[in-house]
Amino acid sequence: MMGTPQQERWIRSIPVSSQPPSLKDNTADVDRLVKEIEKALGGEEVRIDLSLSRKIPSLLREHGYHVRADLYKGLLSWHLVDVFPPTEAGSVYGLAVDLGTSMIEVRLLDLVTGEVQEETSFLNPQIHVGPDILTRIHFAGREGGLQKLQSLLVGRLNQEIQSLAERQGISTKNMVGASVAGNTTMTHLFLGLDPYWICREPYIPVLNRPGLIRPGDVGLGIHERGVVFVFPNAGSYFGGDLMAGILASGMNHLEEVSILVDVGTNAEVVLGNRDWLVACAGAAGPALEGGVASMGMMAGPGVIDKVVIEPATGEFQVGTIDGLSPVGICGSGMIDLVAQLYLARMIDIRGKYVPEKCGERIQTIDAMQHLIVVFSKDSGTGEALTLSQAEIDALMRSKAAMHTILTTMIRMIHLEWKDFRKFYVAGTFGSYINPRSAIVLGMLPDLPLEVYEALGNTSLAGATTALLSLRKRNEVDEIRNRVTYVEMNVNQEFMNQFSAAKFIPHTHRSLFPTVP
Amino acid sequence: MMGTPQQERWIRSIPVSSQPPSLKDNTADVDRLVKEIEKALGGEEVRIDLSLSRKIPSLLREHGYHVRADLYKGLLSWHLVDVFPPTEAGSVYGLAVDLGTSMIEVRLLDLVTGEVQEETSFLNPQIHVGPDILTRIHFAGREGGLQKLQSLLVGRLNQEIQSLAERQGISTKNMVGASVAGNTTMTHLFLGLDPYWICREPYIPVLNRPGLIRPGDVGLGIHERGVVFVFPNAGSYFGGDLMAGILASGMNHLEEVSILVDVGTNAEVVLGNRDWLVACAGAAGPALEGGVASMGMMAGPGVIDKVVIEPATGEFQVGTIDGLSPVGICGSGMIDLVAQLYLARMIDIRGKYVPEKCGERIQTIDAMQHLIVVFSKDSGTGEALTLSQAEIDALMRSKAAMHTILTTMIRMIHLEWKDFRKFYVAGTFGSYINPRSAIVLGMLPDLPLEVYEALGNTSLAGATTALLSLRKRNEVDEIRNRVTYVEMNVNQEFMNQFSAAKFIPHTHRSLFPTVP
Repeated sequence: MMGTPQQERWIRSIPVSSQPPSLKDNTADVDRLVKEIEKALGGEEVRIDLSLSRKIPSLLREHGYHVRADLYKGLLSWHLVDVFPPTEAGSVYGLAVDLGTSMIEVRLLDLVTGEVQEETSFLNPQIHVGPDILTRIHFAGREGGLQKLQSLLVGRLNQEIQSLAERQGISTKNMVGASVAGNTTMTHLFLGLDPYWICREPYIPVLNRPGLIRPGDVGLGIHERGVVFVFPNAGSYFGGDLMAGILASGMNHLEEVSILVDVGTNAEVVLGNRDWLVACAGAAGPALEGGVASMGMMAGPGVIDKVVIEPATGEFQVGTIDGLSPVGICGSGMIDLVAQLYLARMIDIRGKYVPEKCGERIQTIDAMQHLIVVFSKDSGTGEALTLSQAEIDALMRSKAAMHTILTTMIRMIHLEWKDFRKFYVAGTFGSYINPRSAIVLGMLPDLPLEVYEALGNTSLAGATTALLSLRKRNEVDEIRNRVTYVEMNVNQEFMNQFSAAKFIPHTHRSLFPTVP
Repeated sequence: MMGTPQQERWIRSIPVSSQPPSLKDNTADVDRLVKEIEKALGGEEVRIDLSLSRKIPSLLREHGYHVRADLYKGLLSWHLVDVFPPTEAGSVYGLAVDLGTSMIEVRLLDLVTGEVQEETSFLNPQIHVGPDILTRIHFAGREGGLQKLQSLLVGRLNQEIQSLAERQGISTKNMVGASVAGNTTMTHLFLGLDPYWICREPYIPVLNRPGLIRPGDVGLGIHERGVVFVFPNAGSYFGGDLMAGILASGMNHLEEVSILVDVGTNAEVVLGNRDWLVACAGAAGPALEGGVASMGMMAGPGVIDKVVIEPATGEFQVGTIDGLSPVGICGSGMIDLVAQLYLARMIDIRGKYVPEKCGERIQTIDAMQHLIVVFSKDSGTGEALTLSQAEIDALMRSKAAMHTILTTMIRMIHLEWKDFRKFYVAGTFGSYINPRSAIVLGMLPDLPLEVYEALGNTSLAGATTALLSLRKRNEVDEIRNRVTYVEMNVNQEFMNQFSAAKFIPHTHRSLFPTVP
């Protein structure tokens, strides 16, 4: 990905020299400069803003008609961003940004070498308004709410941009471009577009293809004449982050059909190959209340991310992040735990505790059964870590939702699981899921383990790729135009499947031959 | 010119309707609107600004997905300027502007009908800084000088735009585009570009092709998302006003060679036909000190614009503008007067008074001979109107300069006067010149009178044409690219010719066979 060839760069910094004007060649200063740059770019057209034109004559004359020019390629022509003395270091930077609902991840890239200079992430400051998308959409509807959400986000981003520049000893004027991917609502909030209709039938975004915008359009603190590439959406529930994911996975170049699933609040799914792409995401409403990823806390030190239960003895082995004493459990740990509970038959196929199998670990608190995962003596908090029946029930709904979405999806396009060569799991949460545990639970289909591949933050990876390569940036539009977006139809058939999927691994055991 | 067909308009206002979104068609609001507009425009691409996108959803929903869209065609795609309720009157306006050094002329055009709604002109407020281009260029070099000149001009223009809107009962938001032509310096001052190098060897403009700019780039008070087309220059002494002149004359479409002369401070000249165009203007420096048009006052009520002298009796008949009592003499009147003085042999071939022929009309004031053109009893000022020898001398230099420029020009391209089918005289001053008088003086070549055609303000006419028609707007670039600009070389040969032209009609009388 970092190996994107230099000649594919759409943000560049090049040295330019021209002959000084004379009576024999009285081409205007700006035209003279533009002509030389066009020559250097192999004859491609170059445009220049009036505000920059104003300072060209003195700059050219001051430096004897030898300067360095920063420029970016727009939709059709190149745009001159700035002109510097030739003595200034010839480097130009860009930002790849993943606008996550919870976390914002920013990469500063040296666009000459293509290398990551620094990577940083921070909590999305909109969390203070509301942790989830829906709360923010409602907040945006209030007087000044949208502006507040937008400025919270961009203000925080600008702080980070400023700090990055200071730490790297560069100017924010050297940051000429940004490539931004986020889900549809986050993209709307970044652009200052009202997301009101995103969560209301028939779930309509304001726009799907922001394309290239000026930093000033959103107040982003990079070079004022720079450019921001914003990934397009395919629909209200299928955003630019997924487009970036497709780009990062490369599934749109494969001959074989593969599937990409981003496990977030919804399961966002893309199927396809080099000839076609179908995307689906569940605006599945109340049926999937709580979403696919409602389980557990966020990953962090001491959080349980791995559980093994010895079926014969019922002994628990828990692994934690950084090997610290356990303090809680994250989503991927919970999937491990519940799969292991099932394999040890401590829960039944409905996900209900089997007290006689759980022994001393089962307890009733507030009239509900809880399983002690970590006894107080082994806990990092001094108190026992427990898992309630209600939490398992929630997980069962989530995993059933995931399975139903996946199954509905492949049925819609008349494929079977054996047709898939690759099953890409995207998202930070997705990277931690043990596919075998997810299969045991019936959350993911019963495919050979080598078919599964965790890709990490594909949104950031895709944003990076598009920032470094014009071919890849253009590919995003191709992907956008090629994706057929289907809204998941929550009808009786869907609900029947959902009910059938609320067992471990499934009502139809034959779908999961490898699960005992 | 006004008859430019509607389908050639590049600024339009069209009604757009779309189906409201549904679960079956959940295209984003902006995409939905854009798609319908693209359909209405025969499949051409339409782009939309983020600032406008923000208000689309509520507007569409408020008006049941029936709206009116104002848009303009950029270099490649159409740009949506604004969206209005369908009830608002479907008209859209534009401004054609001639940025003259002395006068600014503005036409408000209804871009639906193509008709002139109103035309207005006012003194260029930069006159308070300096009456001529050179003074203003020097003033622009002072601290804040350029900004002052720019804001004087645009401020005054904006006042006029506001008044026009009020008088016509429209909003400045209904003015979506402007088309602006001026000489190179005026264009620079309008754009806020430093004209410093325009008057300094090797006479380099900052830029020659401003193209399409945003109104905000210069602070012009039309619709903020509208567009301003600025005519390109061919060089420091060959500006957008001449490009507009070529466009207005249509000489670039003729099979035969014709010539267009704009008589201003310099004589700006274009020669050519549909295959080639050569432009020349004299940055001729000290040789032409005072310029071609240094003679007389500006036209106005009571100003003498026509003189006939009865050779036999020496009787003067003077015509004035509006037939009022004479108060002064304008340039065209002076050309008539001096030509008549020569034909009556009251001046000799050197342009010197022949006292014995002038009789009582000759007087010596401050040791210089003056001719009484109007006796005090007939004058509108109560005092005699006189013409000094020095004034005739200045006219002689001017007419010699004009002739030399024209002659040098046609020699450079190896043509003769008989090759010209049309001799277009552009400019307000040019429209009043009596070609026969100019021929008698040897200012214009001795061609049949029907070859001469006065075109009036071709700068304003060209700006209007380009505003009304995309084909014509594009033609301006073709003209710009086709014009070969030659700097007049003021060498010994030029000076010899200049000296030879300082006689009436010329040292080589054979060049003017019809002049007695």
